[in-house]
Amino acid sequence: MRGTVMTSARAASATAPAARPDVHVAPTDSPWAGPIAAAVEAGGGRVTGLDEARALVWLDSRVDTLDAFLHEDIEWMQFRMAGVDALIAAGVIDDRRVFTTARGIYADGVAEHALALILAALSDLRALAARSVPGPATVSRSLSELTVAIIGAGGIGSALVTLLAPFGPRIIGVTRTGRDVPGCDMSLAADQLGEVWPVADVIVLAAPATASTNRLIDRAVFAAIRDDAILVNVARGSLVDTAALTEALRERRLGVAALDVTDPEPLPDDHPLWNEPRALITPHSANPGSAQLARLCTLVTENVRRFASGEALLGKVDLQVGY
Amino acid sequence: MRGTVMTSARAASATAPAARPDVHVAPTDSPWAGPIAAAVEAGGGRVTGLDEARALVWLDSRVDTLDAFLHEDIEWMQFRMAGVDALIAAGVIDDRRVFTTARGIYADGVAEHALALILAALSDLRALAARSVPGPATVSRSLSELTVAIIGAGGIGSALVTLLAPFGPRIIGVTRTGRDVPGCDMSLAADQLGEVWPVADVIVLAAPATASTNRLIDRAVFAAIRDDAILVNVARGSLVDTAALTEALRERRLGVAALDVTDPEPLPDDHPLWNEPRALITPHSANPGSAQLARLCTLVTENVRRFASGEALLGKVDLQVGY
Repeated sequence: MRGTVMTSARAASATAPAARPDVHVAPTDSPWAGPIAAAVEAGGGRVTGLDEARALVWLDSRVDTLDAFLHEDIEWMQFRMAGVDALIAAGVIDDRRVFTTARGIYADGVAEHALALILAALSDLRALAARSVPGPATVSRSLSELTVAIIGAGGIGSALVTLLAPFGPRIIGVTRTGRDVPGCDMSLAADQLGEVWPVADVIVLAAPATASTNRLIDRAVFAAIRDDAILVNVARGSLVDTAALTEALRERRLGVAALDVTDPEPLPDDHPLWNEPRALITPHSANPGSAQLARLCTLVTENVRRFASGEALLGKVDLQVGY
Repeated sequence: MRGTVMTSARAASATAPAARPDVHVAPTDSPWAGPIAAAVEAGGGRVTGLDEARALVWLDSRVDTLDAFLHEDIEWMQFRMAGVDALIAAGVIDDRRVFTTARGIYADGVAEHALALILAALSDLRALAARSVPGPATVSRSLSELTVAIIGAGGIGSALVTLLAPFGPRIIGVTRTGRDVPGCDMSLAADQLGEVWPVADVIVLAAPATASTNRLIDRAVFAAIRDDAILVNVARGSLVDTAALTEALRERRLGVAALDVTDPEPLPDDHPLWNEPRALITPHSANPGSAQLARLCTLVTENVRRFASGEALLGKVDLQVGY
């Protein structure tokens, strides 16, 4: 039944009031287990062994041992990561219980890295950093004169809009539905992307990896965008056709590709993209570590409180939309 | 009489009302001469030959031929550049007439480059960009957790405060006088810098080059700052003792030096600073070219209008403070 949303009796009971929910925090030897246990208590939960638990907070980024933890009394499971596309594909996330991700807590950090990539690309920072005098190729552009299209205006996209605002660019926000995105000069739906490609100086991919965003940026898009456009991907490598990207850079149909994520990832050492001088690749590093734990604690406290009182949980995975 | 402010009869007359001031734009073969001439007219001026002119707009970044243009009827001279410390030292700028710089027009562009350098330094972007998988040295910090000290809160510093605001760092603004700097959490005077060094995670130099800022950052300062501090210089190379900086990087008494300006400049190819992996050097490139002309036109129009009506000119050089 993967791919459809069903509200089973068990899932429904996850939102029924419970005085003091029993929550297991695993793996117990995680360095984050202590602070997260305190966060569970702060939300009104009780930290218990796995057998008694109705909820599970999973602190590992690896999930290969997760199956053994998901016994049938676990009604709700909280991940520490934001993107769970691979877990949906693998069938780990299904409709038998509520799964929540930590997608909100990474937004500010990823948006900050996205802006670092944009500014580095605009000033050709990598080339500059190897030179003692300005060269003819180092004429940089100011964000104030440019149009920035943000594809996906969830947590990361919204945080990026806030960071971009004082630079004064024109901002186009693109969402699945075309809802009005606060702070954007124009809000468009995914099926209007054809209007975006010819006018965007900077294209930032901040959409979740789903069936409908898979290889969203393909050969046809590279033919439609500006030759001097900057493509920034802080979402998932799967959103971009890497072969088409490499070709576009080689044939100068794209200005700069600034990528924190790639497909495949990690990019093999002999991949031709490494040889493109206008590809700026960082190794999926857009999550500043130090602020994560504090934010995850806040989220866990809030979600335990909501779980106890039967309110809707934050970051709930919707199998129908795929994130 | 260099170093003192004198108001000569001629300088005083520069602020007396004049119906339609005669302005010469030089060099006449500058690609900017046409647009600037239009800007002069827009401000109510008349573009004339050099002999008739009472005002001169100098569009070259070189000034070695300038002397021949400064005849005694020139009451006001407008530069296209922001920093004129070398011209004061060389005696080109004196108290015989009013000199104005274009310091305001570069502020946004330099602030944008300063933020690019800060973000690149925080994420260790250069090291990341050469890696396919995150390494242990790539734990990046988020601006939201940090204290940023901005030394010099003129146009660049103020623009940077605006760009930094949505990231949410603690901002300390340092000015000569300690005046309240809008948007800063704390405003300090130059003689209170001793309080800044131990607490600043990021130190941005945005002060003019004067006798009192010369080698402001010396061995004693490198001993006082945090070992993981990021030093950003978008002002002038002379503010930093380069030998002390190189030594501080080598001895890990400084996190990252992100420099758009150096002393000497350009930095010779065999300078030891090039070998420091945590020195990120760009070649005085913080002025995005494309927006400059439009901004200079706006400034020239406004200053011609002010000159015609006897109002105080924008960007007037004050020989006493040295900028």
